Amino acid sequence: MNITLAQAQQALRAAIDKAEKMEVMQNIAILDCGGNLVAFARMDNAWIGSIDIAIKKARTARYFDMDTQKIGEMSQPGEPLYGIEVSNGGLITFGGGMPIKNADGTIIGAIGVSGGTVDQDMDVAKAGIEALK
Amino acid sequence: MNITLAQAQQALRAAIDKAEKMEVMQNIAILDCGGNLVAFARMDNAWIGSIDIAIKKARTARYFDMDTQKIGEMSQPGEPLYGIEVSNGGLITFGGGMPIKNADGTIIGAIGVSGGTVDQDMDVAKAGIEALK
Amino acid sequence: MNITLAQAQQALRAAIDKAEKMEVMQNIAILDCGGNLVAFARMDNAWIGSIDIAIKKARTARYFDMDTQKIGEMSQPGEPLYGIEVSNGGLITFGGGMPIKNADGTIIGAIGVSGGTVDQDMDVAKAGIEALK
Amino acid sequence: MNITLAQAQQALRAAIDKAEKMEVMQNIAILDCGGNLVAFARMDNAWIGSIDIAIKKARTARYFDMDTQKIGEMSQPGEPLYGIEVSNGGLITFGGGMPIKNADGTIIGAIGVSGGTVDQDMDVAKAGIEALK
Repeated sequence: MNITLAQAQQALRAAIDKAEKMEVMQNIAILDCGGNLVAFARMDNAWIGSIDIAIKKARTARYFDMDTQKIGEMSQPGEPLYGIEVSNGGLITFGGGMPIKNADGTIIGAIGVSGGTVDQDMDVAKAGIEALK
Repeated sequence: MNITLAQAQQALRAAIDKAEKMEVMQNIAILDCGGNLVAFARMDNAWIGSIDIAIKKARTARYFDMDTQKIGEMSQPGEPLYGIEVSNGGLITFGGGMPIKNADGTIIGAIGVSGGTVDQDMDVAKAGIEALK
Repeated sequence: MNITLAQAQQALRAAIDKAEKMEVMQNIAILDCGGNLVAFARMDNAWIGSIDIAIKKARTARYFDMDTQKIGEMSQPGEPLYGIEVSNGGLITFGGGMPIKNADGTIIGAIGVSGGTVDQDMDVAKAGIEALK
Repeated sequence: MNITLAQAQQALRAAIDKAEKMEVMQNIAILDCGGNLVAFARMDNAWIGSIDIAIKKARTARYFDMDTQKIGEMSQPGEPLYGIEVSNGGLITFGGGMPIKNADGTIIGAIGVSGGTVDQDMDVAKAGIEALK
């Protein structure tokens, strides 16, 4: 069960709409079940450095099937996964990456958002995943 | 003078429409003037290995402001640019990457297409750049 | 709006002059809006390992349009961007990278300085950006 | 015996002057004896992809103490060094990279030029090395 381009574009559209309402310039990446890129958009004047971060957030969320924020908590100094971010060619372990599930709860891909504060990134990612529920 | 997200999505839409008519599954990447990703789409069942090739084709086209096919001709054994593909973290030197110009001829970005034959990739890339002329 | 070579050399000259006065051997990199190198100088006997750091500082500053020192504060353990340095092929998240603005405040590139203490690096970077105001 | 920044900037200046006379936009890199960057300039509107190529040409010339053109001849299909370009993180094996010697013939660094035809790149590189003889 894999996300389709039509679904990815729908999630992307919803995320962009949310970001526009919030007036924050975002990079938004949608990946499939294999952790491979399906759709991407960088809003005008969004940070260039957030292209890679958006993609890596989505990949991190799918590689471990959980929100990147949760992985971040577990990878602080002294915590069980300390240092995990150097694996897999670089993970991003703060909020803004989330698995995408379809209506029946199956994980079909992941979304990663970067360009605002971490809270803003998470809000925009949520808008993307809500669109497919 | 840099491509906007709206322009990138317009070129992407035109390229997808062309690929659907040709019944070929494509990966399509749109980059800005600095060689940084702006928009991307992978059609359902398109080759995963073509994600990176599509992006690298677009980057190659912008990095040298010419079609990747032309660079390919110049980098054959015995030709002046033989071996150029190992530079810049990996270039793609066959057809399917093209600079994007706006109505007055200024280069504003680049498109890269991968997933079909090289001829099909070039046809789809052309459809993308025609949409912005 | 992109930095010209003449502007980059002017900023580079001002930064070298400052470093000479401070008697510190610096590596100084000037990048354009796309994060691509425009001008570079390594002063005699400056650290070789600081070539890459100077370039990465400038890239980091342009990728997020802020001083690298600020990104460093936000990426300490427990802070929102903890771990960001593994993205984008390696970021540098301590002081010495700054966006370059022209007289009207538009970002036209970035400067990165490495070779002294972080405070010295920031002083030299500031001298570079002041030269274009 | 290593090239100084003053010498590197003198060679760079001579190379830029030559390129301006030829009306070709060049990327020019000067490396030291260790193969590490000392000075760099990208002329306005020069190819972005030539930044890396200019640096790699200079490195290739210093790593083997000969013109890159000569290495190119030896690395064609069927020739002794076929495939050498994938070593050392990527070599460039066509003309435009040359060792720099001081007045008494000692190699003190290397120059790499990229942005024109291979012949133009070699002419500009020669102008750079002549300036230090």
